[in-house]
Amino acid sequence: MGNLEIRPAVADDIPAIVAMLADDPLGAQRESPDDLTPYLAAFQHLDGDPNQHLAVAVREDRVVGTLQLTVIPGLSRKGATRSIIEGVRVHADERGSGLGTRLVQWAIDESRRQECQLVQLTSDVTRTDAHRFYERLGFEASHVGFKLPI
Amino acid sequence: MGNLEIRPAVADDIPAIVAMLADDPLGAQRESPDDLTPYLAAFQHLDGDPNQHLAVAVREDRVVGTLQLTVIPGLSRKGATRSIIEGVRVHADERGSGLGTRLVQWAIDESRRQECQLVQLTSDVTRTDAHRFYERLGFEASHVGFKLPI
Repeated sequence: MGNLEIRPAVADDIPAIVAMLADDPLGAQRESPDDLTPYLAAFQHLDGDPNQHLAVAVREDRVVGTLQLTVIPGLSRKGATRSIIEGVRVHADERGSGLGTRLVQWAIDESRRQECQLVQLTSDVTRTDAHRFYERLGFEASHVGFKLPI
Repeated sequence: MGNLEIRPAVADDIPAIVAMLADDPLGAQRESPDDLTPYLAAFQHLDGDPNQHLAVAVREDRVVGTLQLTVIPGLSRKGATRSIIEGVRVHADERGSGLGTRLVQWAIDESRRQECQLVQLTSDVTRTDAHRFYERLGFEASHVGFKLPI
């Protein structure tokens, strides 16, 4: 396989990112890859925000992975800045290749560059393989994640 | 008791906010209320970011509660914007008064004003009273929350 590059996403990457978001047991029920309009609008918000880092992994000009990193300043823990990882996806052709590890390691490294002291994420309780994956990377399942659709 | 007001925090509120962050079984181990320097620096970052809403609840000119609301645009869920609640604290004198509910309801209402479709938060697995509190407010414990100090 060719070299892998992890770089900031651009608007032209959106179709490939949305296809990966939808190619997932949970995402299949809540994404609309046939209508990119809301995704392109959301990308404009992400692209203009210095605390947002939407990344893609690219191999041989193909987008094969993505994640979103958000940097959040705060008062807790002596004014610690934390980062949150969301929307981690690896293309079906690349699963098991170590790309997920590369992506999350990129997010950890970028969090250090952004002077974060803590990286956090939540994972649906049904994604037990993902939980083992994050524990192998050193994350601790120390919290319960609550969500409320509004 | 006098009327309660929930309003954006200002720099003068920082000592009272930090005192509440520290007056907590977990916070007592990780805050430094005798040195406000890192908190004041963090407040400058929060104050300049339109996606950050650090709120205080004030009764009779006393700060008696706080939380931090962060608005996060994203691609997942058809370009949904979500909000994250962090650092919810109620002054010891006010516990059991319904102030926690008022604060979180304020965060939900503010999230709607910010056009969020989802409110989320994580709570340490040891805070079982807090878990029941969030479930009573309609939140679902659907996720596992992972953290990695860096």
